[in-house]
Amino acid sequence: MTLAPIMYLNGRFVTADQAVLSPFDRGFLFAHAAYEVTAVLNQRLIDFQPHVTRLRRTLDQIDIPNPFSDEAWLELHQELICRNDFEEGLVYVQVSAGNEGYRDFAGPERLTPTIFLFADARPLIGPMAEHGISAVTLPDTRWLRRDLKTTQLLSQALAYRQARERGAVTAIMYEQGYVTEAASANVWIVTPEGQLITRNLGTEILPGITRAAVTDLLAGADVPLVEARFSVEALRSASEVFTSSAGALIAPVVSLDGAPIGSGRPGPVTRNIQRLYYDRMGADLGPLSWL
Amino acid sequence: MTLAPIMYLNGRFVTADQAVLSPFDRGFLFAHAAYEVTAVLNQRLIDFQPHVTRLRRTLDQIDIPNPFSDEAWLELHQELICRNDFEEGLVYVQVSAGNEGYRDFAGPERLTPTIFLFADARPLIGPMAEHGISAVTLPDTRWLRRDLKTTQLLSQALAYRQARERGAVTAIMYEQGYVTEAASANVWIVTPEGQLITRNLGTEILPGITRAAVTDLLAGADVPLVEARFSVEALRSASEVFTSSAGALIAPVVSLDGAPIGSGRPGPVTRNIQRLYYDRMGADLGPLSWL
Repeated sequence: MTLAPIMYLNGRFVTADQAVLSPFDRGFLFAHAAYEVTAVLNQRLIDFQPHVTRLRRTLDQIDIPNPFSDEAWLELHQELICRNDFEEGLVYVQVSAGNEGYRDFAGPERLTPTIFLFADARPLIGPMAEHGISAVTLPDTRWLRRDLKTTQLLSQALAYRQARERGAVTAIMYEQGYVTEAASANVWIVTPEGQLITRNLGTEILPGITRAAVTDLLAGADVPLVEARFSVEALRSASEVFTSSAGALIAPVVSLDGAPIGSGRPGPVTRNIQRLYYDRMGADLGPLSWL
Repeated sequence: MTLAPIMYLNGRFVTADQAVLSPFDRGFLFAHAAYEVTAVLNQRLIDFQPHVTRLRRTLDQIDIPNPFSDEAWLELHQELICRNDFEEGLVYVQVSAGNEGYRDFAGPERLTPTIFLFADARPLIGPMAEHGISAVTLPDTRWLRRDLKTTQLLSQALAYRQARERGAVTAIMYEQGYVTEAASANVWIVTPEGQLITRNLGTEILPGITRAAVTDLLAGADVPLVEARFSVEALRSASEVFTSSAGALIAPVVSLDGAPIGSGRPGPVTRNIQRLYYDRMGADLGPLSWL
């Protein structure tokens, strides 16, 4: 990532060295925080409304007062983009339950949030979209409310570290024999019979914004989709696998635990969905000769 | 709590307003951090060796290099006590995976930890030990490695908040019908037949240091103990319930979901264990007329 120089912390636009928190912040002590990551293309936020709706929902469920209206959140994101003269990449926002100056599990009845935003300038469609990524499988050890986007991300951080140790880029997690999610993305498979499957929504997975956008696109294009849980065996024997996320958009998975998925190259269904998605977000497909 | 004025952060003894972290600290972004809480009586750390052994194990399991030897950890804790002229209370230590100045799930291969310590000055044996506490029952939503003492504490923070909303002090959590732990303590019951039970160790619960000390004391006093999982029904129908933790030591639980436990007052087995434990840690039992 390339950190944009100006970030936002609790009412002020600051540089990285000015951005400081108390270690008594409940985000640091208790992982009591929500976050969102929104993609930006040509200075425009992609699907901002569903991101801010999900942020609102997470904050509500973890008892943090939402400090802003949806409109004010949009303005803040836009001001960050503008001040950094930022064209393409991601905006990250984290809202923690704030700093009380001491450590107490319950904390005050009404919490005063800490608000932190930064931008990461980078091309959204890069070599991983073109060539695909490798993954390993790992047991899912996360807490039971994975539908909430919180900073309880230790399992995911460790999953990425284990993946790298095993020479891969990401991990695909499973529980009770069924795939849940990739370390920070939803997972999709194409069966040898040509059926497209992604796990149905529930507390077991994050309701991905990119996942929802792809689902809408598929409905519009009359591509049949099954939303249901699928096994690790189905994942291994899939002819295509890809992930969806705001950070990596549509990322083909071309190997799993060291063995190729299908042909070992991004497949036609994945390419079609990449094309539909990139087009929808207004990307210039011209330079993407591989697509 | 009464925060002792001098704390420690990354090599320096500082006051609260000087204690600042980057929001890019992996403790804040990913809950990638271990912690310990050790009780202090008469400036002496209680059971420091098992606390530092557990800290070492947690750090190892979550891939954070342990910055100090056990001896250096002890010296640091003692220096914090000495600088604050601190008699009685708790020392908190948190070791996060540190600040890389950006956000990346995997992070660098070798992490550089953030080290934070503070002391909380307060009497260890207070009104809760005398009169007991109220609890509510809640489903346990935590991640699957509860044997590691990490800052993935959102479930516990929310459990304390829900307990307070329902007029109670703490929560006792369960999964699949069996009690796991209280929100930040191990749980013990005495059945109507007089059997003392606490859950057996495993990844489902934290291996409490106070729990281990009580287990040793019971063995020494020839009090039979069963280490096994027990149901929520067994909890409700228990004649006595208490929790063990470094923060609250032995805390009688006298009501559950609004109904009294046993007589609704701390029972004889609990009082006996309080007496054994306080005596072991060197407390003056003289002023404790209720014991």
